[in-house]
Amino acid sequence: MTDETLTPTALSRPKRKHRRGSHRRSDIHAILDASPLCHVGYLVAGRPVVTPTLQWREGDHVYWHGSSASRTLRTSTNTEVCLTVSLLDGYVLARSGMNHSANYRSVMLFGRAREVVDPERKAARLRAFVEGLWPGRWDALRPMTEQELKATTVLSMPIEEGAAKVRSGPPADDEEDYAWPVWCGVVPIRQAYGQAEPDPRQLPGLAVPEYVEAMSDDP
Amino acid sequence: MTDETLTPTALSRPKRKHRRGSHRRSDIHAILDASPLCHVGYLVAGRPVVTPTLQWREGDHVYWHGSSASRTLRTSTNTEVCLTVSLLDGYVLARSGMNHSANYRSVMLFGRAREVVDPERKAARLRAFVEGLWPGRWDALRPMTEQELKATTVLSMPIEEGAAKVRSGPPADDEEDYAWPVWCGVVPIRQAYGQAEPDPRQLPGLAVPEYVEAMSDDP
Repeated sequence: MTDETLTPTALSRPKRKHRRGSHRRSDIHAILDASPLCHVGYLVAGRPVVTPTLQWREGDHVYWHGSSASRTLRTSTNTEVCLTVSLLDGYVLARSGMNHSANYRSVMLFGRAREVVDPERKAARLRAFVEGLWPGRWDALRPMTEQELKATTVLSMPIEEGAAKVRSGPPADDEEDYAWPVWCGVVPIRQAYGQAEPDPRQLPGLAVPEYVEAMSDDP
Repeated sequence: MTDETLTPTALSRPKRKHRRGSHRRSDIHAILDASPLCHVGYLVAGRPVVTPTLQWREGDHVYWHGSSASRTLRTSTNTEVCLTVSLLDGYVLARSGMNHSANYRSVMLFGRAREVVDPERKAARLRAFVEGLWPGRWDALRPMTEQELKATTVLSMPIEEGAAKVRSGPPADDEEDYAWPVWCGVVPIRQAYGQAEPDPRQLPGLAVPEYVEAMSDDP
């Protein structure tokens, strides 16, 4: 059983717009689960580097992975990282430039990234990643080899320090601006999945799996 | 007239998957122009922080902005930052877990963020930001006040060090795996704009502007 809220820290407590912030675990988890795409920040020779990658969550840990040969993975193991997930939900068009904004959901997590070393645990994490996106796919794949497992690094970070931030709803204009005659509102943005494109080298007679069909929101 | 390609550096030259990388200015600009959402990495008390924000490009500079009171803006001025833009274009489902991938376009830029101090230049940059998203909107807004301009910080970075990275197309499986009987292909992902939602406090009789109509791809 984990705490329901994370303890705010200097990094995780924004000075302004605090009303938009949350340290509730359920808020943080919901945003992590809504978008595999994340951006990991770490230091290379003292300079900040931000790498996009895919994350997944199991319980109160977040995971990401890559080639064991990659600089990103090697450099960000056992050091401080910041993992940020953000979803742009809409443009907010207000009556003044100043009050234009964006609707979004974001999570920033801080901590030390640690490598999942034990091969069985590592394999279980990779399986959970694939199954989380496409339930039932892992067992249909050509089985993972020992060499592939070695060539893959899985990093893990406890969800301990961080916060969620959310903005939603219509523009918040200065009271005296509401009489200004310009169209205002929200242009909603969402991630849309298109019709699956079968591999041209696909064996004949293989149906599109249900988990792929279910993703597409094209008519 | 700017160079056609950026000079590769230790940070901007990835060790692997080099085939996916590009230092061509036109490739970098196209990706920056395709997505305002970016993630800026910088240091707070020696720890990396990754903040989502919106960027825009003018010529060979990239800009972002925020409240002059915000920690992000204050901490990332005149220091090294990494600005990353990434678009997730699809999930690539292969025959082995190892060869699963994502189609994406990304740009990583490195450099020092500098404040645009001159009020006229700063106002021009903010105007360009709004006009870039919604052509014709700036002049329809309640004009920006001097106080609002002061309360806004605009940061700028020359596009000098960095690279684009792109993955596209079907899965790239190990040759001996092509006989494996599992559905493979790409699930395309795109950003979709919904029907605009007028502000409930909207003055009556204001039509949805063309630049908002043009964004929506709902029928």
